[in-house]
Amino acid sequence: MTARMPTNGGPFTLPVRVYWEDTDAGGIVFYANYLKFFERARTEWLRSLGIEQRRLREDGHGMFIVVESQVRYRRPARLDDLLQVTARLEAAGQASLTVAQQALLKSEHTAPDADGLLCSARIRIGWVDAATLKPARIPQPILEVLQE
Amino acid sequence: MTARMPTNGGPFTLPVRVYWEDTDAGGIVFYANYLKFFERARTEWLRSLGIEQRRLREDGHGMFIVVESQVRYRRPARLDDLLQVTARLEAAGQASLTVAQQALLKSEHTAPDADGLLCSARIRIGWVDAATLKPARIPQPILEVLQE
Amino acid sequence: MTARMPTNGGPFTLPVRVYWEDTDAGGIVFYANYLKFFERARTEWLRSLGIEQRRLREDGHGMFIVVESQVRYRRPARLDDLLQVTARLEAAGQASLTVAQQALLKSEHTAPDADGLLCSARIRIGWVDAATLKPARIPQPILEVLQE
Amino acid sequence: MTARMPTNGGPFTLPVRVYWEDTDAGGIVFYANYLKFFERARTEWLRSLGIEQRRLREDGHGMFIVVESQVRYRRPARLDDLLQVTARLEAAGQASLTVAQQALLKSEHTAPDADGLLCSARIRIGWVDAATLKPARIPQPILEVLQE
Repeated sequence: MTARMPTNGGPFTLPVRVYWEDTDAGGIVFYANYLKFFERARTEWLRSLGIEQRRLREDGHGMFIVVESQVRYRRPARLDDLLQVTARLEAAGQASLTVAQQALLKSEHTAPDADGLLCSARIRIGWVDAATLKPARIPQPILEVLQE
Repeated sequence: MTARMPTNGGPFTLPVRVYWEDTDAGGIVFYANYLKFFERARTEWLRSLGIEQRRLREDGHGMFIVVESQVRYRRPARLDDLLQVTARLEAAGQASLTVAQQALLKSEHTAPDADGLLCSARIRIGWVDAATLKPARIPQPILEVLQE
Repeated sequence: MTARMPTNGGPFTLPVRVYWEDTDAGGIVFYANYLKFFERARTEWLRSLGIEQRRLREDGHGMFIVVESQVRYRRPARLDDLLQVTARLEAAGQASLTVAQQALLKSEHTAPDADGLLCSARIRIGWVDAATLKPARIPQPILEVLQE
Repeated sequence: MTARMPTNGGPFTLPVRVYWEDTDAGGIVFYANYLKFFERARTEWLRSLGIEQRRLREDGHGMFIVVESQVRYRRPARLDDLLQVTARLEAAGQASLTVAQQALLKSEHTAPDADGLLCSARIRIGWVDAATLKPARIPQPILEVLQE
């Protein structure tokens, strides 16, 4: 399960396996846990661009926090499913980024034609000072990397 | 910490304490965990109306699943904060409900004038058959209770 | 649902409701989540003694971290169950405390005679410097409160 | 990040990245979340032996549940750390298995000589009927695969 860099214009993609911890008594992935999957994909997408969040925070540069999330749950995922979770920069401002994300089913448990979109999201993340948590401008080197 | 029935038209409110499990290395509540808080408040709101989700599912009547979530994160909550989490029915259709929810700060750690809105959400939940997970009509007794 | 101070020698007890987030696709509470319940009870037990963990950490005094956990899972809990989670100081050293904890079923879904022990644990917590995370002596005022 | 089959007698190993969701306000991985990491490693270890837990449960054969856990937390993991999580069968009875597990640090953030043991565990899992949750004998085909 290796994170895949975009080729031919496709979005960044992270494989995510559904474990017992992700499911609930309904037999499906609990709705909040897609936000965990989306966060993992954003982190790996940033890492693939050379942006290490722990280092940024420890160096006092600040951190990203989520400002707004919109999620549309289309079909449920289940235990043992293998998901492909994507992250694509939709818009970049001075103080926030909008990231479009999807969770797609890619599981050996499912007929090939059943693969498809489970969940889509638009997540807006803002930059804050790590100590005061006040909104701040995204550091220029990060914006430059993102806009390449 | 007791769930409060609405009086004078206020929404249903559940007190929620922020524990270590809810926070992340940024020192604040992880964004996915507000969806847990909102789910707890919806469950207690339904329970206050006499609707027991486990019984409904075990009796084969089906269950609610989240179809769409929109969350606006305004100010972060921190360890030991005491939140008031609300749930208010905004719209009821034959197959889905829209619930407006808020998380408000009500903490001994904070100056009284600092109390206020941390996070607001609009959550749409649909009814599905528990076995097939196919969308279905919300059972009439539930709709009647909700529309009282 | 109010935390109860020990009377007539009983242990500190916190009521904990089982929500969707706590369960897994087996229909029962996921085993890691009892450690969340036990942590909540330890936090409320410390708070009942006047010990506020966030303040201790922010004031630079350090924090408790778990050093060792032993858990025996006897009977599973399910959605909507109401648990009583206890915390009782078993031993106090200069650098660590041992806390005995239990999760007991107390649910309207269950026949009265079915109430009983679900899960028992012995958790050892040590004190560390908040910045370096190095083990340190538990501050004397905390030890004094605990040994009263 | 690919699960590695044991070679030259080493244990099964699953790489696990530490994300925001895994950490708490102490800046380290929350203690309950190691049980999630250990469960992921047990699931991938079973999968590597051809044992699919979702299929077993849906086919009515039953499921594994955790009966006992002992965890020793030695050094904390932090955001962005890359862990190696192992699983090794220690004992197999008719009704339960004992699995020895470790979480080891393997991170680009750390000096090579700082790699080492973060957390070790002994987890006993029992077999139960999926409907009644009553203990039962582990199915013979599973025991045979495990004892090869």
